Parts: sequence; structure tokens; C-alpha cells
Amino acid sequence: MDPLNIGIIGMGRIGKIHADNLLRMPRVKLAAVSDLYADEALAQWAAERGVPVATRRSEDLLEDPDIQAVFICSHTDSHVPLIVAAAKAGKHIFCEKPISLDPARTKEALDAVREAGVKLQIGFNRRFDHNFERVRELVRAGRIGEPHLVKITSRDPSPPPEDYIAKSGGIFIDMTIHDFDMARYLIGGDIEEVYARGSVLVDPAFARYGDLDTAVITLKFAGGALGVIDNSRRAVYGYDQRVEVFGSAGSATVENDHPNTAEISTAEGVTRDKPLHFFLERYNEAYVKETRQFAESLLDGADVPVDGNDGLQAELAALAAKWSVRLGRGVKLRELGD
Amino acid sequence: MDPLNIGIIGMGRIGKIHADNLLRMPRVKLAAVSDLYADEALAQWAAERGVPVATRRSEDLLEDPDIQAVFICSHTDSHVPLIVAAAKAGKHIFCEKPISLDPARTKEALDAVREAGVKLQIGFNRRFDHNFERVRELVRAGRIGEPHLVKITSRDPSPPPEDYIAKSGGIFIDMTIHDFDMARYLIGGDIEEVYARGSVLVDPAFARYGDLDTAVITLKFAGGALGVIDNSRRAVYGYDQRVEVFGSAGSATVENDHPNTAEISTAEGVTRDKPLHFFLERYNEAYVKETRQFAESLLDGADVPVDGNDGLQAELAALAAKWSVRLGRGVKLRELGD
Amino acid sequence: MDPLNIGIIGMGRIGKIHADNLLRMPRVKLAAVSDLYADEALAQWAAERGVPVATRRSEDLLEDPDIQAVFICSHTDSHVPLIVAAAKAGKHIFCEKPISLDPARTKEALDAVREAGVKLQIGFNRRFDHNFERVRELVRAGRIGEPHLVKITSRDPSPPPEDYIAKSGGIFIDMTIHDFDMARYLIGGDIEEVYARGSVLVDPAFARYGDLDTAVITLKFAGGALGVIDNSRRAVYGYDQRVEVFGSAGSATVENDHPNTAEISTAEGVTRDKPLHFFLERYNEAYVKETRQFAESLLDGADVPVDGNDGLQAELAALAAKWSVRLGRGVKLRELGD
Amino acid sequence: MDPLNIGIIGMGRIGKIHADNLLRMPRVKLAAVSDLYADEALAQWAAERGVPVATRRSEDLLEDPDIQAVFICSHTDSHVPLIVAAAKAGKHIFCEKPISLDPARTKEALDAVREAGVKLQIGFNRRFDHNFERVRELVRAGRIGEPHLVKITSRDPSPPPEDYIAKSGGIFIDMTIHDFDMARYLIGGDIEEVYARGSVLVDPAFARYGDLDTAVITLKFAGGALGVIDNSRRAVYGYDQRVEVFGSAGSATVENDHPNTAEISTAEGVTRDKPLHFFLERYNEAYVKETRQFAESLLDGADVPVDGNDGLQAELAALAAKWSVRLGRGVKLRELGD
Repeated sequence: MDPLNIGIIGMGRIGKIHADNLLRMPRVKLAAVSDLYADEALAQWAAERGVPVATRRSEDLLEDPDIQAVFICSHTDSHVPLIVAAAKAGKHIFCEKPISLDPARTKEALDAVREAGVKLQIGFNRRFDHNFERVRELVRAGRIGEPHLVKITSRDPSPPPEDYIAKSGGIFIDMTIHDFDMARYLIGGDIEEVYARGSVLVDPAFARYGDLDTAVITLKFAGGALGVIDNSRRAVYGYDQRVEVFGSAGSATVENDHPNTAEISTAEGVTRDKPLHFFLERYNEAYVKETRQFAESLLDGADVPVDGNDGLQAELAALAAKWSVRLGRGVKLRELGD
Repeated sequence: MDPLNIGIIGMGRIGKIHADNLLRMPRVKLAAVSDLYADEALAQWAAERGVPVATRRSEDLLEDPDIQAVFICSHTDSHVPLIVAAAKAGKHIFCEKPISLDPARTKEALDAVREAGVKLQIGFNRRFDHNFERVRELVRAGRIGEPHLVKITSRDPSPPPEDYIAKSGGIFIDMTIHDFDMARYLIGGDIEEVYARGSVLVDPAFARYGDLDTAVITLKFAGGALGVIDNSRRAVYGYDQRVEVFGSAGSATVENDHPNTAEISTAEGVTRDKPLHFFLERYNEAYVKETRQFAESLLDGADVPVDGNDGLQAELAALAAKWSVRLGRGVKLRELGD
Repeated sequence: MDPLNIGIIGMGRIGKIHADNLLRMPRVKLAAVSDLYADEALAQWAAERGVPVATRRSEDLLEDPDIQAVFICSHTDSHVPLIVAAAKAGKHIFCEKPISLDPARTKEALDAVREAGVKLQIGFNRRFDHNFERVRELVRAGRIGEPHLVKITSRDPSPPPEDYIAKSGGIFIDMTIHDFDMARYLIGGDIEEVYARGSVLVDPAFARYGDLDTAVITLKFAGGALGVIDNSRRAVYGYDQRVEVFGSAGSATVENDHPNTAEISTAEGVTRDKPLHFFLERYNEAYVKETRQFAESLLDGADVPVDGNDGLQAELAALAAKWSVRLGRGVKLRELGD
Repeated sequence: MDPLNIGIIGMGRIGKIHADNLLRMPRVKLAAVSDLYADEALAQWAAERGVPVATRRSEDLLEDPDIQAVFICSHTDSHVPLIVAAAKAGKHIFCEKPISLDPARTKEALDAVREAGVKLQIGFNRRFDHNFERVRELVRAGRIGEPHLVKITSRDPSPPPEDYIAKSGGIFIDMTIHDFDMARYLIGGDIEEVYARGSVLVDPAFARYGDLDTAVITLKFAGGALGVIDNSRRAVYGYDQRVEVFGSAGSATVENDHPNTAEISTAEGVTRDKPLHFFLERYNEAYVKETRQFAESLLDGADVPVDGNDGLQAELAALAAKWSVRLGRGVKLRELGD
């Protein structure tokens, strides 16, 4: 069988992670990479890995008839036009989250995908984490009965630089978006209403951009199940990524991953090492799995595991959270209009 | 030194727990007990323990000049009149929570206490739990830096009978009230605003009384710290009582207590026994400590560890939660008026 | 029913623990205590608790026809003569471990007990610990299949004073004896052979008395199951009391008990408080249970939970360990002769 | 810089693991593989990975002047002649454990290595496990003070097939050898004496070959520290690989690794998934690290992390254990003669 030819648009940190993972897959060929700022270093990166094309023009990838799919890893503003162009060019698409900061534009992209009949997977990498997958499996198997409550703790080890904050779209679309998707994934249902409350406790820079760095978000799902997410931009002990689903027959929880299981007991107490530091350590394997499942969905005809609607729903929840803070009340997703 | 003479009004389950704990204290004498339904069984109970008086009339206790303090363990409606009467009689008071279902009446009771110059301790027993005490100690010692977030999981093993539900005052005043107090205790500050959202997922009986059985409550404290509480009336695996305080320098968490540390590994997995079943098991020692500290505050002149204002603040938070559900928005405690 | 009248011989620390536990039991009366060094302080101790007799003469207890049972908590040398005298006087007996340092003398005591037809319980308090009881229960229920291996970690927080070391009989009879009994209890079978190896690593004082402070002991049971015990006289992090039973269908383990479940995560790591400090904290409830079961065996006619042969078997294992160190080889219990 | 050319002799399971790990290393080239039973399948395996040579003759590798190092992954009997031949050919050597079943022959191999001035690393992969590395690091940093005791639990999920048992050399050389090395690694010192006791409890096949399937081994180190290892050929809950080092200032322990951190609480108890199943899962990363460190020692001139003497010492301990079982006493390594 011919290998699947894939191109990557946007060769920042996440583009390179996907590239390295694709390069290890036997039935996949990384045929081309593009980046607006492609330079000698990227050319060398490509040469060392046997990637034939490294270009500044994403069009080079979209116009190449041998390329069947593209990864869109460029900055958020470019996602919608690139999805539309790729769909028109008949390419299957893997796009990083969020699709856009505006649900109307996101829907435009999803329409283009639907019309073109191509596949679209959104980069919610956490769904592929071994811990969360196990909880989802237990929930789906009915081991906790009917889900009543999902709780998500999601804290970064340290805040991003100020210029990133300025353009991030705010904590809900930049950070909580993963948690909205995780909540939907674990419960297996849609969010109907969001209430959010936040503060600036970590870094006054967030206040300068009308943003928050600490937040608690309440969710209400169709059917009455509740959800709660807490976020912080700085957990000094490292990346804090825990979930719990509680239901009529029990509860499933996960703890953080640690670099080792060693525990030292001394006259001062019993101590173990901190959790894995950040997403590259914690979600290392999850990135591999998400890429593989995208490729397999193309090679073997399965559905993509995270689709465009999953992207849209998380964005709507983020928007509802933003409005909830402004209005001081719960906001229903259907209030956000069409 | 003469012993402290104490009387107990209301000899239901909780009255008897306090009685047994007082009976073991060397400097305390349990001088009398009263109950509206005092009968032969109670007389025998008293005789076996050497308690000289068992009566139907609480007045017998309040009029006895040798009794310095009373425990009010009768039904909620009677708390305010009994506090007022006891205060007027110059007795120190330990009163079970809540003081009343109406902050205006609670304030009336607190005024009477203030005027009489007697001590009043409210029965927030969880403050005396070894786990929560340790978290409070770590927070107070600055080990987690500035507190940003308090999280409380509080779930009962099974719902109360329907006739109890009918008169309970609702989940927030009956159940969450403990958690509101715990949040204040752990953070060391006052709740400013409450948002609550709930469902009936456990038992339709709750809906019949306009009540909820599953709830998520968001708190905002003076200074910007956030709080979140989740409640359920039924956790099939037993009493679920966990807290976390997260701050600028770290996080302090507690897990449930278990009856033993045994873990069995088989071909099916690794299993341990469920948490302690309910409050009698989990808070057994906490009840002893709260009673002892009340007695010591009288014997040694220390402040009571939980005072009337603590009772009022938790009741106001409960009321705010109730209004929040009705209004669909966050409710500030100061909106609740005077 | 008339209460059970009990006397205690030897009112050191352990005698007083038993006294306090007996005093709380409804069907038991602590009728008398004796101690070779009984003084004003003991008289006062007795008066405060309503114990009618406090004497220097153990004979006063043994000659009192109203006393049905005695606790022998005096120094080890006195155990055998007191057991013999008590048995002849028709008293049931609870005796602290070891019965003696010499199996021949121990057998003499057991013979006297048998002839008199009284009950004898040995003070292996650890059998009543909630953790070990749960493991025993799991083993007995077949949850781990056929037992293949029992592992016991048993370490004290700090070594005893030198004058105690001088008279202790050595680490195997003084400390490991509990572990020999625990191994028999958990496996539910008899030790056939013992190999022991040790060092002086904690305190050179042990070497001065030909003793060891660190030891590893291998056991072989009838049927082929193996056992291993490790001992240290000083674990700086506190009392270390863990067991594991491994078998054909799985493994059951217990961890130490901790004063609370609080865990603090900071930039330095994740820390919890040390285990409970020593036996008074760890085995507090176990002492209550062992005393209650002794009383119940007398009141209700049940067997005592730990009998004289249990005491003898543990002593024989200790002796075998001592010989094993001298001979550098495994020593069978049946080599120790009759 | 020119890459390091490596050949692998013996392409069974472990040979292929090393091959895959070497193939991912940038500065290394897998130049050739040999296997006595090389066939079409191996040729294809090599072709798919771009390995230029797949042969039945190990001589082809040893005679190739471009190959600087060989991995010896063939059956144990061939290790010594291959080490001698490779050393004479000036190749650096990575050899799987054990070097041989006979210390005299092992010394012969080590002599050849010394004379040729080549490097030799022994395949004690567990030293590279993230958990054990962390314990070693803590011990070396003095965090537990002076080591007094090392405890190793080492149990396989299921016994090998009978034909393997027949030729394995017995449990001590086949299985415990890893634990002897681990004990030396963790303590940082040499074993002086070994006592071993075992049974056949898992599978009567072991008895047919004079072998054991369950064992407890006591170690004595230079300086007086003690060690204890327990082995079983069948732990139904999976690979059980735990260690503890206890010392004058504390204790460092590790637990097993699990596939995830999920815990499910139901009315039946609290359950998590079993540990990782066997060495391929548990030591996956350790194999990568051991291979990389070998390559780096050649490329960068560092010492190999596990040398020939480490191999010899573990073999001597295994032999001492075998003799100990026969003689029923502790056996000193120096008794095993030269």
C-alpha cells in the first residue's frame, strides 16, 4: 500500500512535535513542511530527517496533488483561511485548537470541510492521555453508573510571557478550552450552560489585558449532570492535570503522573518528587497517539476521534464563560446565537 | 477546682454523642439532660451513667444555678428561643448548627448572647478533624503562600429519609453549611459572593420539596480568592470529605480516611477498602475535641474556637446559595440585608 | 450478671494501659492492682479511678476469692512463678510476652495452666491491629490463594536505654518475638526453621551486651512457605510496622498509619507527615481490643485469641534465631529439644 | 563525526530490542546482525530497517574492520567464546547477563577483555530504571544516611516454559542475578556473604530440575549492611519490582509502575489497575538508556556504567546462593575460590 503523504503548515514547537511523531510511523510519509518564517535552520531540520520540501508557502503543500492531508499548526488567526483552502484543495485536515476565536468563523470553516467531504480532526491532545482515556473507558463501561458530576483541575506550572497573554484570547479560549473538551469527553454529552468566576492573583499582567489567571467554572450538561473546572496559570509544583467523574454507582479519579515512584522517609516527613513538569512531559505519549489515530482514520477509513463539532462546542463554552464573567450570571450556549 | 456543671437540651443522636464525650472529661460533670420526649429509656440511660437529672423541661436546666453551661441539641426551630433563654439565665452555650434558618433570627440570638456576656460555640465539628486541622495549620504557617483557591468535596453516603428532607431547610442550609464554614476556616477569611447550581439526580423526593441533591457552589472571598464546593446526597462508596487549598507557593490536600491500609493485588487489580462510612466514623475524634475545647474555653478562659459569627456567616452563605439558584446569578452576602 | 473481677500485677506503663482499658469496660471491675514498688502515687492513681486495692503483694490478689483473673505485667523473670501461682489459685491469666527467656520454664508454666484448667492469654497486641487483622482476614478468606511468603518490616523509632538492653534478652526475644508471632498469625501455621543474620549499626551499646540492633531473619514454615523479617532499633521517621503476605492468587500488604492524610505539594516536592511515632500511638486501639477479647473469652466462654502455645512457639523461634547467629546456619525449632 | 558502527550477535527477543533502540540513535549505525538461525524473516527484518548485513556467521561481524562494537545477545554458553573472540578482534562489547554459569570461565573472559583493552558492559538493564536510579541517587546523596539494609522484591508474572527451566542454570543465576546486582548498585558496595532458602510452590516442574521457584536470600555486605531479596516465579498481579534502602537517616522506597493513575471507588471498594505486566513494559525506557550509555561511553570516552566485575560479582553471589541451599548455611563469596 502506498504511504499516506502528509504536510505540516506551521513549524513552531507543536508542528515539530507532530513532525517527529509522523516520521516514526511506518505507513506515513512526511512530504513537506511550510512556515512563514522558514529559514536555513528549518531547511537543515528537514534535510536531516529526509523531508523533501521545506517552504515558506503553505500553497506549495495545498497545491501538491500527492499530499493527502495537512496539519495546521500555524497561529490561530490563520486556522480558518487555511482550513477553507485545504478543504477546497481536497486535503484532510488536522488543526490545532482553537479553530478560531469567533464561533461564526469556526462554523464557516466547518461548512467548508463538510462541503468538501474531507476529514477534520481538532488537536485536543489530552483525550489521548493514558489516565483520562482510562477514566473515559470506565465511565463508558458504566462502572460509575449514571454520571452526576465531572471535576477537572487544570493548572499550568507558570504563566506565558506577556506578549503571548496579549494575543491569547483570554484564559477561557486559551487554557480552559482543553478542559471544556475534556468535560464533554468524560461525560459523553454536551454543555448547556456555563458560569465562570475569576481573579488576577498570579500576575498583574493578566489584568492589563482584561484577562484572568485564576478561575472556577461551573458547567451544566444536558440531562442535569454538573461540571466544575478550576484553572490557575501558576502551580509551583508543576503541571496539575487531574479529573474525577462521580456518578450513581461510584467515582473514577486520576492523579498526576510523577517521574518516578520513589518516596523518602526521614525525620522531617515522607516526600516524593513533584509531578511531571508540563505538557511536553505529561502528554508526550498522548501526542503520539493523537497523530497515529488521525493517520489511521485516513488509512483505515475510521472516524476521526475528535471532530470539528468538538472544536466548536469547546469554543462556544469558552465564549459563554467570557460572557458569564461580564454578566455575573450563568450563560447558556444557545444564547450565543447562530 | 470545682468541676464544670453542664446540661444537655435535646437527647437525640448528637446529644448523646456529646454526653458520652463529656462524661469522659475529668473536670466536667454532666449535671442534667432534658428532652421533650424524655421517657423511661432516657431515665435508664441517665441512671447507668450517674447523670442525676433527666427531664422533659429544659427550664429545669436553665433554672438550676449550679449549671454553668448548656448544650442545645434540640431541633433547629428551638435553637433561637433556647439561646435567648439560656443567655438570659447566664449560661454559656454550645449550640448545634444551624442557629436558625433565618439570619434575622440568628442575629437576635447573637444579640442576646452579646448582651448577657456568655460564651457561644457553634457545632461545626469538622474544624476539629485531624485532616482538616492539619491543612489549616499548613495554610496558617504560610506553607502554600497566599491562598488562591479552596476546593471542598462533601458527599453523604446516602440521602436522609423523606420526612427529614421535608423539614431540612434545603441542601445548602442542611448540608453545605458545614462546607461554607470549612471554606472560611481553611482560607481564614470571609465569603463575599456565592453562585450555586444544582440538580436532582439522586432521589426525586428532593424535587418534591423544591430541593436539590447534587450541587456545585462557587465562592468568592474578600481579596479575590475563589472557592468551590461540590455536594451529593449519595456517594455509594461512603462519606467523601476531602479538601484542597491551593496557593501561590503550593497546595495542601487531604484524602478520605480508611478503616485500614490493607491493599490486595490480584489478577483483577489492586483494591483497598472503602473510606469510613459516615460522620460517626469519620468525625468520632472531632466530636471529642470540639466538646473538650468548649469545656476548656470555660475552664481556662480561652476563646471558643467557633463563635456565633461563624454560625451566622455560614447561614448567610447558605441563603445566598439558595437565592443564587433562583436568580441564576452570583449573589453577594451583603445583598442579603440587615 | 455479676461483673468480672480482675486484678493487675505490675503497674508499669503497660499495666496502666491495661488498667485504663479495663476501667472502660461495662462488664468488668478492676478490683485490685499490685506492684512491688507500690507507693503513694499508685494509691492516688487507684483512688482517682475507684480501684479499691493497691498493694505491694501480688499474693493479695491471688488470695482474693472474688478475683477471677489476673493480668501479669511485671518484669519477665517473675512471669513463670506468677503464672504457676495464679493457675494454682484458679485464676485466669493474661500474661505479657515473653512468658520467659527459657522454653523449658515456659513449658513449666503452660503445664501449670493446663493442670489448673484456667485460661491463659499472651500479650501479642499486634494481632489486634486493624491493619494486620484485615490482612489475616484476607488470607483466611483465600483471597491471596495459598500463602507462599510472609514479609514483616518491624523497626522501632529509637533504641531503648542501655540498662534495658542489658536485661532485654537480646533483639530476638525482646523485639522480633512480636514478628515471629505475627508471621505465624498471618500464615496460619508453624515455623519450622529460622535463619538470622544481624549487625550492630545503630548503637555500639548493643555490641557491649553481645546483642544486635539490625537483623534479617528467614523463616521456613511447615508446607514450604517462607517468611522474612527485618528489624532495626532505629527508624528516624518513626515506628515502621508493615506486613505483606504473598500467595498463589495475589498479595496483601499494609502500609504504616499516619496521623493525617494531608499532603503538601510545593516547588520542592510532595510531602506528608511521618507515620505514627511508636507503639502507644499505633497500637492504642489494639490494646483495647486485646483486653476486651480476653474479658469476653471469660464472660462468654470463647477461646482466648492468643494462647500459651502461641507464646511458646514465638519464644522457640527467638531461641532458634539466637542459635542461628552463633552457628551461621539455619536452625530447626525441633533441634531445640524438650 | 563518523557514526559508531555496531553489530549484534544473537537476534532473539533481546537482540531485537537493542537493535530497535540503536536504530533510533543519531550517532550510531547498526552495521550488521548475526544469528545462528538467520533466515528469510531476519533478512526481511534487516532490509526494512536498512541494516546492510544479516548473517549466520558471527565471524562476519568480528572480521569487519568497520565495526567498532558488538552486542552479544546469543545464548549463555556462547558468551565467553564470543567475548574472547570479540576482544581479540579489538571490538568493544556489550554482553547480556550472565557472562557464564561458571566464575572461572567468566574470569577468563574478563582477562581477555583486559588484555585487549576494549570496553565491556554487562546487560543489567534494571540499573537504568527511572525508579531505581532515583533511589540510588538519594542514597549516594546521603539522604538516608549510612545504608543499613537493602530490600528487594522481585517476582515474575509467570514462570518460563519447562525447556527454558531445564537450561536456565537455576533461579539464582537466571533471575536473582539481577537482584544481586541491584543490591550492589543501591548500596554501593560488595556482597560478602549469602544465605538462601527456597521452595517449590509455583510449579512442580522446577523440582524436576533441582530448581526452586520461590526464594528468600539474605546478604551481608562489607561494613555490616544487610540485604534481603525475595523471588517468586509467579505473581498473578504482574511484574513485582520494588526496592527499599533503609539507613541511619531514613528510608527510600519505590513502588511498581502502573499503566495509569485511575482509581475507581464503588460500593465494593477502591480499585486501580495492576502494575505493568512484565519487563518489556516496565524496563522499556531502561533498555533505551542502557544502550545509549554504552554508545556514549564509546563515543565520548566515559566509563561503561556496568562493567565486567559487576557481572562477575553477581555471578559469584548466585553461586554462593546455590551452595547455601545445599549446605544449609551462609556462604561467603571468598569461599568460592579462585
